[in-house]
Amino acid sequence: MTDKKDLEENLAFTPKYDDEGLIPCITSDTDTGKVLMFAFMNEEAVRKTIETGEAHYWSRSRKELWYKGASSGHTQKVIEMRTDCDQDCIWIKVEAGPACHTGRETCFYRKIELGEASDDAKMHFIDAEKVFDPKDVY
Amino acid sequence: MTDKKDLEENLAFTPKYDDEGLIPCITSDTDTGKVLMFAFMNEEAVRKTIETGEAHYWSRSRKELWYKGASSGHTQKVIEMRTDCDQDCIWIKVEAGPACHTGRETCFYRKIELGEASDDAKMHFIDAEKVFDPKDVY
Repeated sequence: MTDKKDLEENLAFTPKYDDEGLIPCITSDTDTGKVLMFAFMNEEAVRKTIETGEAHYWSRSRKELWYKGASSGHTQKVIEMRTDCDQDCIWIKVEAGPACHTGRETCFYRKIELGEASDDAKMHFIDAEKVFDPKDVY
Repeated sequence: MTDKKDLEENLAFTPKYDDEGLIPCITSDTDTGKVLMFAFMNEEAVRKTIETGEAHYWSRSRKELWYKGASSGHTQKVIEMRTDCDQDCIWIKVEAGPACHTGRETCFYRKIELGEASDDAKMHFIDAEKVFDPKDVY
């Protein structure tokens, strides 16, 4: 097999990190299928997520390992962890508390109106109800 | 409002592109909630996606606008398009044909075994059935 074909078809997990040592991670709710957040993992975060079954990320703003829920209590139990064809992205399905620091279930709480020129693109709130008060947990 | 708060709470779509002019995009199946693929959009791809209601990306390998399905016929009708709290990621839900160039419905056709040290991490196929022959369409 070519290297590319091998990467696509074999069953050894060999994640491809970018120049900064990070791999993007999509996190969705295992029950609803909703995408909750998008973040990055470094090698340590990937390892800890696999070993503990709880989501760990790399915080690019704080430049440190980020055990999701460490400060908010909203940890994420990983039900399934997948990678994509070229192993440069991770998708985890989690049993979730609210994921967004704004107090919402998901970070994706606004939808973009389709059919308009994007210079004028408007958005509407969706899934935007606040389920906790950020001031109480951060 | 602070700039950050404004970005999070207002309804003007002002996507934040990275240094290469790209924004990551998560694409999921509107019916099943499965993540199908992860790719990037540039400003033109975002605009065309909004205007046409069909998914457009930026191909980093070919360095060109990528109208998904142009060669395979597997276009993606966008049912909903969202952005996240800091507007640096896009999530689209699509009515999908198969998304993966390997012939599968989703690029995420392998799951990683949890609970093992990641040096030994093994994977298993899931949703890995080929639904078309890549040789026929590319």
